Amino acid sequence: MTITTCVFDAYGTLFDVTAAAQAAAAEPNHTDLANVWPAIARDWRAKQLEYSWLRAVAGRHCDFWQLTQDGLDWALEANHVTNPGTRARLLELYWELPAYPEAPTILETLKSRGINTAILSNGSPAMLNAAVTSAKIGRFLDDTLSVEDVGVFKPSDRVYDMVGARFGCVKDSVLFVSSNGWDAAGAAGYGFQTAWVNRAGAPVDRLYAAPHHVVSDLTAIPELI
Amino acid sequence: MTITTCVFDAYGTLFDVTAAAQAAAAEPNHTDLANVWPAIARDWRAKQLEYSWLRAVAGRHCDFWQLTQDGLDWALEANHVTNPGTRARLLELYWELPAYPEAPTILETLKSRGINTAILSNGSPAMLNAAVTSAKIGRFLDDTLSVEDVGVFKPSDRVYDMVGARFGCVKDSVLFVSSNGWDAAGAAGYGFQTAWVNRAGAPVDRLYAAPHHVVSDLTAIPELI
Repeated sequence: MTITTCVFDAYGTLFDVTAAAQAAAAEPNHTDLANVWPAIARDWRAKQLEYSWLRAVAGRHCDFWQLTQDGLDWALEANHVTNPGTRARLLELYWELPAYPEAPTILETLKSRGINTAILSNGSPAMLNAAVTSAKIGRFLDDTLSVEDVGVFKPSDRVYDMVGARFGCVKDSVLFVSSNGWDAAGAAGYGFQTAWVNRAGAPVDRLYAAPHHVVSDLTAIPELI
Repeated sequence: MTITTCVFDAYGTLFDVTAAAQAAAAEPNHTDLANVWPAIARDWRAKQLEYSWLRAVAGRHCDFWQLTQDGLDWALEANHVTNPGTRARLLELYWELPAYPEAPTILETLKSRGINTAILSNGSPAMLNAAVTSAKIGRFLDDTLSVEDVGVFKPSDRVYDMVGARFGCVKDSVLFVSSNGWDAAGAAGYGFQTAWVNRAGAPVDRLYAAPHHVVSDLTAIPELI
């Protein structure tokens, strides 16, 4: 099946979620992060995702901004960072995460070839709009789809259903791209073609489906279409 | 409301899930685990739980024995352990996990006071029966309830519903005990009275409900009733 539509996860895939903790740690007001920022970045992300899955299982949805604060609060306590100013700065930076260096060029290439392009993310509309604007990639995207429109997080089928509803395309004409192994597996199980951006060289997740392609960054995505 | 029924999570709460990797590492045939068994125990557990939540969100249930193998396979690859004999031994030990030292006495105390006692676990019936038998705690338990009867993992309401269906009790006459912060929070959100056994001194999970009691091991449980 010819790919007509290329859909990207946002956090970790187009945007570098570790950048907030790293950038704050480099600022003179946040020396409390100097030694612990990698642990905070890791715990923050892990808890943010864990809470998204738990809320989806229990039917207790909240938006991703709440999860982002909840995950950070756990991570700060676990790493003994108590300064409210540090918390505020980390949250502020989450609204202006940098895109990975190759992301704008890849998106531009896809658009120039007539491929539909979109983000499909757990993020709230406000968070996603801020990140897209900050990274200056809005002109290469046909749409930014947020799970807030369906009220549940990935990997629920109701989230992946949003792509067909928006673009009128069948499942296997979609290439879904995610750096989150579980998201790539979830999308593969749903019926999309999938590419896992395995930047960290992690083992493949043992789930109910496997990604069709594994790449080390976004550069190879146009070659898959 | 008077507590009539005390329900325990199994893995991590009554049974020490880190014991399998630790015990195997101490055996002469498994020196490949010498330096990495703590990382394997951590990754194995993390992936086992992650996969349980993801499968529950996506409606792709499998039993906990499959998840246990899937999580271990990820953990072994991440820690560069390739010996099939080591894998087999770790899985074998998961069927005979030791109970925490205080567990039998606490269960016996509850039974002597006429409290209904049960396990409510993600584990498969066969796994749970083996663990209960191995730890010799069956005579202190009125029942062992497995999520396999409802086909979805915690923290789905359908799992917690099994307690009322079995014992005919209202929600807040149940004390639910778990060492998993997310499980204690999930049960609290469901409507049980809850105790979180926080053996590791971890921060409380920022979820939609908080446990009613936090204890450092099982010793204090009878005092809560």
